[in-house]
Amino acid sequence: MIYLDNAASTMVHPDVLDSMIPYLAGQYGNPSSIHRHGRTARKAVKRARGQVASLINALPSEILLTSGGTESNNTALRGVAALNPSCHVIVSSIEHDAVLEPCRMLSREGFDVEYLPVDRLGMTSPADLQTRITDKTRLVSVMFGNNEVGSIQPISEIASVCRRHKILFHTDAVQAVGKTPIDVRKIGVDLLSISSHKLHGPKGVGALFVRKGTMIDPMMLGGGQENGMRSGTENVAGIVGFGKACDMAKAGMHKNVVHLQKLRDALIWGILKDIPKATLNGDPALRLANNAHFTFLGVNGEDLIIKLDEHGVAASTGSACSVNVQKASHVLGAMGFSSEEVAGSLRLTVGMFNTLDEITQATRILKDVVRELRAVSPFKEKYSFTG
Amino acid sequence: MIYLDNAASTMVHPDVLDSMIPYLAGQYGNPSSIHRHGRTARKAVKRARGQVASLINALPSEILLTSGGTESNNTALRGVAALNPSCHVIVSSIEHDAVLEPCRMLSREGFDVEYLPVDRLGMTSPADLQTRITDKTRLVSVMFGNNEVGSIQPISEIASVCRRHKILFHTDAVQAVGKTPIDVRKIGVDLLSISSHKLHGPKGVGALFVRKGTMIDPMMLGGGQENGMRSGTENVAGIVGFGKACDMAKAGMHKNVVHLQKLRDALIWGILKDIPKATLNGDPALRLANNAHFTFLGVNGEDLIIKLDEHGVAASTGSACSVNVQKASHVLGAMGFSSEEVAGSLRLTVGMFNTLDEITQATRILKDVVRELRAVSPFKEKYSFTG
Repeated sequence: MIYLDNAASTMVHPDVLDSMIPYLAGQYGNPSSIHRHGRTARKAVKRARGQVASLINALPSEILLTSGGTESNNTALRGVAALNPSCHVIVSSIEHDAVLEPCRMLSREGFDVEYLPVDRLGMTSPADLQTRITDKTRLVSVMFGNNEVGSIQPISEIASVCRRHKILFHTDAVQAVGKTPIDVRKIGVDLLSISSHKLHGPKGVGALFVRKGTMIDPMMLGGGQENGMRSGTENVAGIVGFGKACDMAKAGMHKNVVHLQKLRDALIWGILKDIPKATLNGDPALRLANNAHFTFLGVNGEDLIIKLDEHGVAASTGSACSVNVQKASHVLGAMGFSSEEVAGSLRLTVGMFNTLDEITQATRILKDVVRELRAVSPFKEKYSFTG
Repeated sequence: MIYLDNAASTMVHPDVLDSMIPYLAGQYGNPSSIHRHGRTARKAVKRARGQVASLINALPSEILLTSGGTESNNTALRGVAALNPSCHVIVSSIEHDAVLEPCRMLSREGFDVEYLPVDRLGMTSPADLQTRITDKTRLVSVMFGNNEVGSIQPISEIASVCRRHKILFHTDAVQAVGKTPIDVRKIGVDLLSISSHKLHGPKGVGALFVRKGTMIDPMMLGGGQENGMRSGTENVAGIVGFGKACDMAKAGMHKNVVHLQKLRDALIWGILKDIPKATLNGDPALRLANNAHFTFLGVNGEDLIIKLDEHGVAASTGSACSVNVQKASHVLGAMGFSSEEVAGSLRLTVGMFNTLDEITQATRILKDVVRELRAVSPFKEKYSFTG
């Protein structure tokens, strides 16, 4: 299997798994226990917190450990909203549902949520954001890199606008962390979401960076873990693996980014060269190191995925979340794509374990599959494909 | 180390760990992905859901997978409350903080939360509950077995009262599941919380049983996983381990309960026989199979734990959650204990991996440690201990 769906989930790195095993075997203490089993677990969580913090240049005390990116996003949005009743919130129109759905809930609860448009490349504009800010704006949330088309947003500029207006700025960096160096101090972001399983850590763990001094309400209430900000017994093994994954991401950042970009670009240029009427979506330059996203007119993206799967290539139409809801991409919709363009879209996301040889193979398979599907496409005449 | 803190957390069973490894290694697909990696993950989650359901005789569709007992409790209480604005909620006064803290939040939001008292043995009364029900009561939450003193509540009777009044009944069964046979159909409970790491599964996973037809609002919003009831990429490996742990708990229930009760009773009778002025707390008969809870007057529970730890015995004063908050037990307070009685309390909770030999050793060590601490106790004269 050539796995080109690394934006959906990544393989747990073998070293990450190794780091977790002791905490799934002999070290089973509850970090809240006083005895040595508890202390061992507590120390492990502390070390992992430091590793997560270090990857984004945060303080360990600024890292809130969660059950994943979705919880981090929910906590950020609702945590700020709870302390700012009926305020004005601005989010981009291409956010993940883990941001959009909490926003819809806030709307129902009387908050004024405004959606920042994007251009044809899926980019938001800081100048546009600036014009939308009012006296009641308390929170802006714009993702770091889009999960579907890979466009990296002008995060530093957006952060500057927010700082100038003393507005909290959250970014869902789930797709970006580990694939580009991120320094929360330099960016000037207040809240930042991370997911472990997107960077070769285990599923079920994540973090929310909460800048020192930033006030949010906790979402999960109970025993008062995480300094009262996230109750529930810590997922020690998961947290240890997450920490290790962050540590490895930091140590291997340069090499990994170069590797991902090389594979991604080979994929992009190979496909644009070999497959007729293939278009690259998202910003061609400002894009996640692992993301390639295309439209093949006249082809249905889901048919494409199923055929690719039969030929041993794992791909995605866009977001992997959630399989049960086969709705048209709101991201491509916001970018002004026609329904035909949306239908013919495909996301290929590379990972550290992919090779150039796999990319060559996958490109060849994709070329055949697109030709095959276009041969039976109802749009065959319309586009008069020659490929 | 003689681990007698199984109520805080249990060792992941080696077979559970074995079941998880494939999903932490080669099977890293996102259950929402269409391709075979996704399908494999999806099937694994489905199988595990069935295993969890089977342990409590629920339907798989009635199992909501969460990040743990705390999330399950938060989801149950807030999920019901969200659909019943300003309603009357009755909870016992000896609930875990993961129930009490959401209740405090509900109070702040204008809900009328009433706390059901308990007797000296830590038991609630269904008759008392009955008298407190009003036209506005929509939810009752009483835990199955108390996490500190182990008293098993009259759950079926409470469920009957609730059914008669068409009130939803939630029980936090985190400490009971796996230690006593539970049949949600027979009990007639509407919502029931489970935690994986209390029954030899991994930390960071849990479930909420939601009876078919019971309406609750989701807490975690986003991609719409779990039929829209709990968004976020599924913690596949954790869920698989949780499922396996439930499967093993079901298969080994009788043998395990007999083993736990034998160890527990050896501990109780050994301590009451060998240590002067030791008293057993909680109901002597209606108690969790793994729980022994004592008061040793004139001794400070925390000193006891630290000394026991030095001698290789892992114990707890009461709840393990959370270490940062060293507050007096609200459970013992509700049971009418004096502050001296509360201070001198110790919880010992046995597990499937403990042996009778360990119990004998631990009893001997405890006897010595209690004598040692009492010899320097400021209450030495007052109680004129002879032990």
